[in-house]
Amino acid sequence: MQWDAQFADRTAQMKRSTVREILKLTSQPDMISFAGGLPAPELFPVDRIREATDTVLAERGREALQYSTSEGMPELRGWVAARMSAGGLLVSPDNILILSGSQQALDLVARVLLNEHDRVIVENPTYVGMLQAWKPYMPRFTAIPTDNDGMDIDALEQVLQAEPHAHKLMYSIPSFQNPQGTTMSLARRQQLARLLGHYGLPLYEDDPYGDLVFEGEKMPTVLELEAAARGSTTLDGSVIYAGTFSKTLTPGLRVGWVAAATAVIDKLVQVKQATDLHTGTLSQFITYEIVRDEAAMQGHIEVLKNVYRERRNLMLATLQEQFPAGVTWTTPTGGLFLMVTLPEHMDATEVLKAAVQEKVAFVPGESFYITPEGATHAAGMNTFRLNYSNARPERIIEGITRLGGVLKRMMAG
Amino acid sequence: MQWDAQFADRTAQMKRSTVREILKLTSQPDMISFAGGLPAPELFPVDRIREATDTVLAERGREALQYSTSEGMPELRGWVAARMSAGGLLVSPDNILILSGSQQALDLVARVLLNEHDRVIVENPTYVGMLQAWKPYMPRFTAIPTDNDGMDIDALEQVLQAEPHAHKLMYSIPSFQNPQGTTMSLARRQQLARLLGHYGLPLYEDDPYGDLVFEGEKMPTVLELEAAARGSTTLDGSVIYAGTFSKTLTPGLRVGWVAAATAVIDKLVQVKQATDLHTGTLSQFITYEIVRDEAAMQGHIEVLKNVYRERRNLMLATLQEQFPAGVTWTTPTGGLFLMVTLPEHMDATEVLKAAVQEKVAFVPGESFYITPEGATHAAGMNTFRLNYSNARPERIIEGITRLGGVLKRMMAG
Repeated sequence: MQWDAQFADRTAQMKRSTVREILKLTSQPDMISFAGGLPAPELFPVDRIREATDTVLAERGREALQYSTSEGMPELRGWVAARMSAGGLLVSPDNILILSGSQQALDLVARVLLNEHDRVIVENPTYVGMLQAWKPYMPRFTAIPTDNDGMDIDALEQVLQAEPHAHKLMYSIPSFQNPQGTTMSLARRQQLARLLGHYGLPLYEDDPYGDLVFEGEKMPTVLELEAAARGSTTLDGSVIYAGTFSKTLTPGLRVGWVAAATAVIDKLVQVKQATDLHTGTLSQFITYEIVRDEAAMQGHIEVLKNVYRERRNLMLATLQEQFPAGVTWTTPTGGLFLMVTLPEHMDATEVLKAAVQEKVAFVPGESFYITPEGATHAAGMNTFRLNYSNARPERIIEGITRLGGVLKRMMAG
Repeated sequence: MQWDAQFADRTAQMKRSTVREILKLTSQPDMISFAGGLPAPELFPVDRIREATDTVLAERGREALQYSTSEGMPELRGWVAARMSAGGLLVSPDNILILSGSQQALDLVARVLLNEHDRVIVENPTYVGMLQAWKPYMPRFTAIPTDNDGMDIDALEQVLQAEPHAHKLMYSIPSFQNPQGTTMSLARRQQLARLLGHYGLPLYEDDPYGDLVFEGEKMPTVLELEAAARGSTTLDGSVIYAGTFSKTLTPGLRVGWVAAATAVIDKLVQVKQATDLHTGTLSQFITYEIVRDEAAMQGHIEVLKNVYRERRNLMLATLQEQFPAGVTWTTPTGGLFLMVTLPEHMDATEVLKAAVQEKVAFVPGESFYITPEGATHAAGMNTFRLNYSNARPERIIEGITRLGGVLKRMMAG
């Protein structure tokens, strides 16, 4: 069978994610990888999960192993709704749909909102997993520049003023962005919330890292600020919010959620049903059994924050010590990533090839960038992303030192 | 936010599945439901799953809770490949992609194969979950009639002869079809295998119930016969096969698979990655830990077959005793369902309304049928599907007796 001739047109938009292909290469144990977005497995609450699973199977085994509703486990929806209501916005369980990780939210939201050629506003650079999920729906992307305070909202306003109804959807990770690790300031969040209302523009607020705050308080979500800007206390606005347990509990259970107006949830439930019926029942029961103990869960998140803060500090200090002049990087205040910028003429993919020889890996920035039409070279070619959550301290020092050596040689040569 | 104006065109093709909406209504404990396709929860190997989970978390906890590859757990892919190779076809782990249940296979295969307006051949009636998954891709369906031996392959051949290259894909559940419970005979399978090769037509062979054989031996799959017809011993042909652990182990773990030529698997992996990264790691580890004990697993399947066979026998006997003359039904030799046909003028949805008053539920056949254009009434209006795997014996007798009473009153009135 000649399958190549059989594939649908949309498959031309699909390619294997660079990130995941590199992850495969770097699974050798002697490789120091800063490439993935993996949490530290030594911090997984394995014993707590064993205990929770045993309780669930002993007390509600048949229910936890049977088919269940597409909307998700009622108790877990209730827990998420209550937690999201802590800031004053009244979130109902009907506003919550449980999904197989928050990557699935990207796919399903695109499916209910995007027609071919619809225009979508994104930060530049933006999350490569979103690009991978949305490109098969064949939208056109409008890229807004970013700085250390996140998306440049003045630039966004100019785009919206110039073409007020040209865009169908906007995407942002306001807190500890992937790939840059930067965070949208409160002032910009408020400005963005007003613009969304003014232009009737839906926003997909992706918030996988929001709980992993290293400094100061957790900032209000754009979801909350958009409601406040309209004087609303219920979740009925233009923001679709995606959260996950992958970073605070474990990724292997595959449990995330979407919070949105019930009209959106209603459509998403229909798509979820057609896509995979429902999220794993046992995974949802285990997750609920663990998170319902609020004090223990909060304690676990504090441990994660402390360990990841230390690793970030160590990586920043080692970068300062080992990287040559002319190389800069972001300083994240939470999350899993920071981004390095090389002198303009350098190509991070070439650096990666040399680094892999030295058994160190990272992700070149190029795949996170939208390159403007007619540009002479790909945007972000001289950038790369580093993850600091997964590697242990001694390997952070060793890996960054090796990488500094590679850069010094290439920049001298 | 006025969301109704925002949704993509494809959402017009989406509706909540009648089956699942009725399932919600019938979750009251005093309702006797023959509506769902639920396995018997009292047969779930809960203790074995507790034990397996404990072993997995004790021995490989960090790995079982971390992100994993989109292709699926290597050991589980290997196990599926070995098991599918038992009939002589050489299936490699590279031919296997692990998915979040086999419903996800429907969505992903449509995504890599179907362009808008592509034509798809299906049995009439056919699986409603497939229609729900594929309609948003906006194909056109060609419906082939069925009888007690499954799809009418002569009718299929006429369609293919008349328009040899008009169709992109074909869908069938050859064994214990949903909704009818009927099985495609060996002669027809062989005839179908030859036609697929002759016309270069891809087939999606959906096989969720194949292991639940009540009488005789398991029949060869069309996947195997298609390879044999070409004299091939490897999986490189036009059949895409979907299997699941939902019916033989439990549905709540959400683990299924696709077996296909590597060119197809390669595309599906890319889509899987964009859709939800990978299938739940812990679910895969638990599944593998259980199924690797072949003898215990086969013993468990024997228990399921015995219990479901008894329930089918009991339902058939009670139908014979309680249903009025003029009503007929299929006699499945495996699987979970049978289908009832009422006199032509009757509407099964009206019967359902009356039955729900008597606390009995089923699924009207209409949603499983493709109605030809220009028909005066919906095809299959006078049919309904009954599930016999989920209800305990005393409830099968009570429910069918009540339903018989409803039918007698309606047919007398």
